[in-house]
Amino acid sequence: MNIDFSYCNPTQIHFGKTALTHLSQELAKYGSNVLMVYGKSSIKKIGLYDQVIKILQDAGKQVTELSGINSNPRYTQVLEGARLVRENSIDLILAVGGGSVIDCCKGISVSSYATGDPWERFWINKETPTEKVIPIGTILTMVGTGSEMNSGSVITNEEQKIKNGAVFPLAMMTPRFSILNPEYTFSVPKYQMVSGIADIFSHLMEQYLSGDDDCTTDYLLEGNMLALISASRKAIVNPEDYEARSNIMWCATMGLNRILGVSKQQDWEVHMIEHQLGAYTDCAHGIGLAIISPAYFRHVFRHGLHRYVRFAKNVWKVDPTGKTDEQIALEGISRFESFIRELGIPATLREVGATREMLPLIANSTILGGGYYKVTADDILQILNDCY
Amino acid sequence: MNIDFSYCNPTQIHFGKTALTHLSQELAKYGSNVLMVYGKSSIKKIGLYDQVIKILQDAGKQVTELSGINSNPRYTQVLEGARLVRENSIDLILAVGGGSVIDCCKGISVSSYATGDPWERFWINKETPTEKVIPIGTILTMVGTGSEMNSGSVITNEEQKIKNGAVFPLAMMTPRFSILNPEYTFSVPKYQMVSGIADIFSHLMEQYLSGDDDCTTDYLLEGNMLALISASRKAIVNPEDYEARSNIMWCATMGLNRILGVSKQQDWEVHMIEHQLGAYTDCAHGIGLAIISPAYFRHVFRHGLHRYVRFAKNVWKVDPTGKTDEQIALEGISRFESFIRELGIPATLREVGATREMLPLIANSTILGGGYYKVTADDILQILNDCY
Repeated sequence: MNIDFSYCNPTQIHFGKTALTHLSQELAKYGSNVLMVYGKSSIKKIGLYDQVIKILQDAGKQVTELSGINSNPRYTQVLEGARLVRENSIDLILAVGGGSVIDCCKGISVSSYATGDPWERFWINKETPTEKVIPIGTILTMVGTGSEMNSGSVITNEEQKIKNGAVFPLAMMTPRFSILNPEYTFSVPKYQMVSGIADIFSHLMEQYLSGDDDCTTDYLLEGNMLALISASRKAIVNPEDYEARSNIMWCATMGLNRILGVSKQQDWEVHMIEHQLGAYTDCAHGIGLAIISPAYFRHVFRHGLHRYVRFAKNVWKVDPTGKTDEQIALEGISRFESFIRELGIPATLREVGATREMLPLIANSTILGGGYYKVTADDILQILNDCY
Repeated sequence: MNIDFSYCNPTQIHFGKTALTHLSQELAKYGSNVLMVYGKSSIKKIGLYDQVIKILQDAGKQVTELSGINSNPRYTQVLEGARLVRENSIDLILAVGGGSVIDCCKGISVSSYATGDPWERFWINKETPTEKVIPIGTILTMVGTGSEMNSGSVITNEEQKIKNGAVFPLAMMTPRFSILNPEYTFSVPKYQMVSGIADIFSHLMEQYLSGDDDCTTDYLLEGNMLALISASRKAIVNPEDYEARSNIMWCATMGLNRILGVSKQQDWEVHMIEHQLGAYTDCAHGIGLAIISPAYFRHVFRHGLHRYVRFAKNVWKVDPTGKTDEQIALEGISRFESFIRELGIPATLREVGATREMLPLIANSTILGGGYYKVTADDILQILNDCY
């Protein structure tokens, strides 16, 4: 734990089949005006919409609704929500949905009373809000982003064709409460489920693939990766396996509530590339990450060889006998790739709607960073070509 | 994650060499009357006492001191602290020390304005306090209990010869902030260091040794155990190895901030037995746990064989080839025992001051519980004899 850190995450989690029974006690802590934000029809199909509305009514809340939030939530929707907050003097924003809905709600929260241009201030210049923000609660129905217990908000500015993540101070913008019932995820289409799994795995790897020290956080990340591999293999066979789905749900929350990132440098470049892929193609976030990751790893692994060797041995159980470090590392990356294939995720960018012409546009608009190796736009173009 | 749970832990952690620089900003959140609680002379020897007093003075605080808290903090000290809180209208209790000091402060916090007999209410009847409690901050100098990020308070009632743990609601009684600088632990005597390591390991095992499901929490616990084994082996060679000591410190905090216990039944019986050993012998807590654990495991492991097999394979890397499950499990327990010996911890109760006559007294006063197997007082006597 060589890198100093501060950490505080006050989200109240209620997890399990009985989680929704805690909603009333949480609602009692806030004023009467609630903005309920959700996606399309899925929460109505599973009956959750009616249940939540009834609990809100029983609690005497005035409910304003904002619906239609889809994957890659748009900045225009953030502004629309902010307007509703101001017009209805909203006391609590209740997100019912997946990471996109929750990320949108965080955007609404910080934008409602912000002066100036919120996009410029928060998503481009990464300012910390100083104006009033609105507390958020969540009822999670789709798993992956970890947004239910963190302060990140990834928003797409359609006009500018930029998808950008803001990370607000954890104690300020992490949801005040999150209701996690794995059963709500049963009806999520398989493609969305595996996209979520790939997103979780990416979060774990991106926190893991840095550092030269013996760091407790790395051991915990390895534990979380092993748990996720085990649960995912069961869930793709039987998506209604409660045990498997509950494990995937908690792997996602732990995977990005930032406790498994403390004292780590981290390398979020795959996310940076995918954000621009998402801005150009509307490809599902996790699917994009899964396609880009192996190509990225093969491009950079020699610069952090010892870490990719550890990844291969501890996570993928590669037998090192008689192999060079490079061979071990590459075998680890291949096993990760096989796991991704096992989940039924496509292997190439062309399968998710990217065209050859988009690749330089994506490469040139990606935020440059990296871990053991700092990438250039040329590197990114090569990586994109490698998985095209 | 088959068992439903709620979780919220709002402790603000500041970790690393620069952690103390955050003290002023934390102090600014509370009123001016501070009760500073510490042990004996060690915080003066390392210069920490002077540093903290200066920061408190610069922040304009009125400081009342309570010192002399030692291991197995006594109920009489809790009452003394509660009196000081009332007399000085204390706004914040600042614990500077290890788990004993922090546990004592939690006791003081709930007892200050409690009606009735706090011992009876909180430590015997496990009531949740309804009266005003005083916020706590900690500066940790000794590692093991995890008290810096949880709500437990183990107190010894000397008169009644009972050592009892109270676990208050996490969000109510976990410290508001904790300052964790691994350097403060360098001067802790080696015996105390290994006692702390044994305590951490015990917390991890006691959360781990339950359940029949594939549970994410178990993988995280395995990760934490592996991290602790690695760091401990370095720290006993060089106690001033910052990397190793910082890992041990974080393993302790993660080990009992309850995030690695969610959705687990848990088996805290070794702690129950040790509490009574502590009430009779004043043996260092972790040392007692380390002596009792192997005997306890050998007494009960057949009732949860699959779990002890997993412990052996995943934590102790026992090669299962050609062995029965029972042999694998026993080999795991033996390897744990060897690790404890490696740390230089005695193997028998007689070495830590227990007499043969004490054993039935300890057995008969221990709270009965267990995990896969529910113990009787006879079982406990047999376990005590086995490690006498």
